[in-house]
Amino acid sequence: MAIVLGPNQYGKAENRLVTVTRDGDVHTIKDLTVSTSLRGDLAETHLTGDNAAVLATDTQKNTVYAFAKEAPVGEIEDFALRLARHFVSSQEAITGARVLIDEHSWQRIEENDHSFVQGSNEKRTTAVTVEGSQAWVVSGLKDLVVLKSTGSEFHGFPRDKYTTLKEVTDRILATSVTARWRYQGSGIDWAKSFSEIRSILLRTFAAKHSLSLQQTLYAMGEAVLEERSEVAEVRLSMPNKHHFVVDLSPFGLENDNEVFYAADRPYGLIEGTVLRDDAEDPGQAWYSLPTF
Amino acid sequence: MAIVLGPNQYGKAENRLVTVTRDGDVHTIKDLTVSTSLRGDLAETHLTGDNAAVLATDTQKNTVYAFAKEAPVGEIEDFALRLARHFVSSQEAITGARVLIDEHSWQRIEENDHSFVQGSNEKRTTAVTVEGSQAWVVSGLKDLVVLKSTGSEFHGFPRDKYTTLKEVTDRILATSVTARWRYQGSGIDWAKSFSEIRSILLRTFAAKHSLSLQQTLYAMGEAVLEERSEVAEVRLSMPNKHHFVVDLSPFGLENDNEVFYAADRPYGLIEGTVLRDDAEDPGQAWYSLPTF
Amino acid sequence: MAIVLGPNQYGKAENRLVTVTRDGDVHTIKDLTVSTSLRGDLAETHLTGDNAAVLATDTQKNTVYAFAKEAPVGEIEDFALRLARHFVSSQEAITGARVLIDEHSWQRIEENDHSFVQGSNEKRTTAVTVEGSQAWVVSGLKDLVVLKSTGSEFHGFPRDKYTTLKEVTDRILATSVTARWRYQGSGIDWAKSFSEIRSILLRTFAAKHSLSLQQTLYAMGEAVLEERSEVAEVRLSMPNKHHFVVDLSPFGLENDNEVFYAADRPYGLIEGTVLRDDAEDPGQAWYSLPTF
Amino acid sequence: MAIVLGPNQYGKAENRLVTVTRDGDVHTIKDLTVSTSLRGDLAETHLTGDNAAVLATDTQKNTVYAFAKEAPVGEIEDFALRLARHFVSSQEAITGARVLIDEHSWQRIEENDHSFVQGSNEKRTTAVTVEGSQAWVVSGLKDLVVLKSTGSEFHGFPRDKYTTLKEVTDRILATSVTARWRYQGSGIDWAKSFSEIRSILLRTFAAKHSLSLQQTLYAMGEAVLEERSEVAEVRLSMPNKHHFVVDLSPFGLENDNEVFYAADRPYGLIEGTVLRDDAEDPGQAWYSLPTF
Repeated sequence: MAIVLGPNQYGKAENRLVTVTRDGDVHTIKDLTVSTSLRGDLAETHLTGDNAAVLATDTQKNTVYAFAKEAPVGEIEDFALRLARHFVSSQEAITGARVLIDEHSWQRIEENDHSFVQGSNEKRTTAVTVEGSQAWVVSGLKDLVVLKSTGSEFHGFPRDKYTTLKEVTDRILATSVTARWRYQGSGIDWAKSFSEIRSILLRTFAAKHSLSLQQTLYAMGEAVLEERSEVAEVRLSMPNKHHFVVDLSPFGLENDNEVFYAADRPYGLIEGTVLRDDAEDPGQAWYSLPTF
Repeated sequence: MAIVLGPNQYGKAENRLVTVTRDGDVHTIKDLTVSTSLRGDLAETHLTGDNAAVLATDTQKNTVYAFAKEAPVGEIEDFALRLARHFVSSQEAITGARVLIDEHSWQRIEENDHSFVQGSNEKRTTAVTVEGSQAWVVSGLKDLVVLKSTGSEFHGFPRDKYTTLKEVTDRILATSVTARWRYQGSGIDWAKSFSEIRSILLRTFAAKHSLSLQQTLYAMGEAVLEERSEVAEVRLSMPNKHHFVVDLSPFGLENDNEVFYAADRPYGLIEGTVLRDDAEDPGQAWYSLPTF
Repeated sequence: MAIVLGPNQYGKAENRLVTVTRDGDVHTIKDLTVSTSLRGDLAETHLTGDNAAVLATDTQKNTVYAFAKEAPVGEIEDFALRLARHFVSSQEAITGARVLIDEHSWQRIEENDHSFVQGSNEKRTTAVTVEGSQAWVVSGLKDLVVLKSTGSEFHGFPRDKYTTLKEVTDRILATSVTARWRYQGSGIDWAKSFSEIRSILLRTFAAKHSLSLQQTLYAMGEAVLEERSEVAEVRLSMPNKHHFVVDLSPFGLENDNEVFYAADRPYGLIEGTVLRDDAEDPGQAWYSLPTF
Repeated sequence: MAIVLGPNQYGKAENRLVTVTRDGDVHTIKDLTVSTSLRGDLAETHLTGDNAAVLATDTQKNTVYAFAKEAPVGEIEDFALRLARHFVSSQEAITGARVLIDEHSWQRIEENDHSFVQGSNEKRTTAVTVEGSQAWVVSGLKDLVVLKSTGSEFHGFPRDKYTTLKEVTDRILATSVTARWRYQGSGIDWAKSFSEIRSILLRTFAAKHSLSLQQTLYAMGEAVLEERSEVAEVRLSMPNKHHFVVDLSPFGLENDNEVFYAADRPYGLIEGTVLRDDAEDPGQAWYSLPTF
């Protein structure tokens, strides 16, 4: 028996980067949180502490900021690809890189050229993996909180000795959507694709009559795949943010689905993948991302 | 020397209440976090554990949910006043009540009648205090995050032996606004007043050329008082969310206020009050709210 | 090309479970956060909304609590194995289960049989105010989480039309103590004083038989004032971290105060001041600190 | 009616300060979060933006760090008094100051002179997967925060055009350990195994002279595998919680690795696996756990 080093990676997490671009008096801002991870032949630093191959995480941080100046940041997918490819080509020992970016949204204050109010906590995300000359892009969004006040049922589930849940034909359905989709093909317009996919997700959530959150999840992923050929696969993680009908009968009141207690914990958690049967091979696309 | 009971209060914090109102097929939701506190002659429960005067916090919770059914919730100020007055009249020993409500915003998904997407983390707030027959309303907002990418300077500050900060004539100014304003007079249209005040705060932040965050704070409060006679006083707490210009000179790059590091901690914290010199007496309006 | 369902799972996340085991007068507690996920042939619920194979996440939750009663929880690995194996054997369609458990640590308070202090992020605090040549020191602690598994009752409170709470003569009492005490006099040994006061607070919480959390709060403050002449006043803020007895009767099990659901929100919030009637004037000591 | 400025204050919140005091080989650390607020005649900056009386919050921050060097920090009350009195005497306009300090607790790791474990929310964890008749157990711990005040170097890393990091032969090394280990074999005493593994992790962190955090990570995993035959594999995720030496030279002070700024973000993130080359097949053990 020998003890050996298994999979490993290292990097700088959560670099907070804001850029201002000025077109005359009109400013545009980008607000990103960037995390980088490098992989490759890193046995030496683990075994002997020899750091000859270890591009310092401080250097990775510097690179993020310098790259933001050397050329416009642009779409987060492009920025992540530039960074990942740079790291992979920078050191012989580094064969792979993963760059995660969350983009925080801002809206202009009325018609002001340089003042902004932050949008919701919703974030546009990308996870770019480069391994040698190959690259995979998994983009998405998180913290998109949605609710429908009707059009959701839940019944027909098995009843064992521990089942007390009542069947319902009308309930509040609320969730915080985390979606990740894997791109395939090339020449993708990242910004347009994101915007369209977000709309499809919202529209399907709203329109689909729901018999289970799983059904809603599948319909959302399916609609994206039907309409967007550049998407190979969609993974959705959707907590069921329970809204319980409060029992008002002790007070002589009937609660006809009007008054709810929004519970924190526990919550149902529904996770699923919808994909094309002829999708491109995922390769390293999902490596070290949350999976299920 | 004797040991005595000083100021005290008790209640149920963070009741999560959601209501659905149906106007035919068109639904409207309200999403609130309600905290109640009661005060009065509560010495017995502290000294002997006799709870004859202690309306249980569980009962306070039930009351929040029952009231949400007995009549439309309406504006948070009205709902808080109803609750506070009820508690004060419910038990002889209870002479005062404070009700805090945070309202979470939702927008309709496109043209759907019953599907919603959550707005930002910004919350509309109210803190209502009732003492006997008197009532005070302090409304506000929090987590309103704003940024201006120019129009902000900072210089002329004293330099002692510990001062290293450079003077700047152009910087990013960003803050997360917590505002509380005390209403006076009667017959106030809470919803309209909130909407107008929020607009004034945003517009002033954007338009005011800033020589210090204090100056911006004062201008924001002053504008509210000038335009809204129903407001006696405005208190603002504004953290200076520092955006530091990254030093790119080691990489041969000049950073002309384009690339910033958004820092988490520490942060400047500016707090101030703007008021009318002939404002109504504040009475218990600010009792047990964060003060400065 | 066809669109197909890929990997998926569903379950109930973050069930908060606390159990009390009694060996004569000596109690032992287990404090767990349990998340369950089930996998298998779940295509139908995704494609058609047919839930015949979907053991409800509510049922999974119930199972966690019922299992905690049916046999001692024991080590978290054993408990997770029991749960996972049960789920896999419960439905033909369910072929896999994953159970995550986090165990929170508690230590016994000194030699008390039924009082505990949580391994926690507790912090020692101070708030010093200087105004001209005067100075005030308010020291304290926060995030000190304590629990007693017996020695707490709550009854005799008023019952109005909104009251449903049952009277109890034995309940779990748990809170996260925020204490602030104002020093008076001079020549104080800050470290020793802090250490002694913290001990008094813990010892009193453990020893005082409680008829209300207010009574416990007062006793804690009173004990500090009786033993420490350098303290003029103690202010305590103590959320009632509710531990609800889980109703296991639907499963034919009697819950004799053994299995509890630790709730997050809402929570009772008890705040009070205990002071000497001849205390030094507080001056600016409390200025801009949280008050009540 | 006139609009006037009411109560106000300003300062620097949440300065993260760590100091190391060396008594021969025996080190002592202080870990504080310091917030300062100043008050006085500050009308000018609010009304006109004239900052002649506004001691910059950046200067307040510098003062906190410089004072930590100029004399031992001592008890937090003494340190807060020194700071508050300094600020009140520093500017004629400043008449009042409030200093808040939170002290975070650390315990010595066994009898080590310079290694510490934080009083923390550490949790014991398990992730059990059952698939049909097979079962896998991955146990671990998280939020175990440790620090060593010497015995850590970092040099020999590659220098490219974006590298500015200085090589160091003595630095603070701090991390929050998330460890997961996969069990193999049967008849395991879960409680004893957990306890032993936790001790090995702590002891190795303390004893291993570190040339990189990767080396420390590997040594920790290796020690577990060498001593515990029931463990097939260890996965460790260890953020590098940076403690930066504060540059005190502008104040004429030399900082000999005594005064540090504990940064929040970004942080290095080191993840690695140590395993036996003849370990049992992992099967579904890691399915849907965070991977790397």
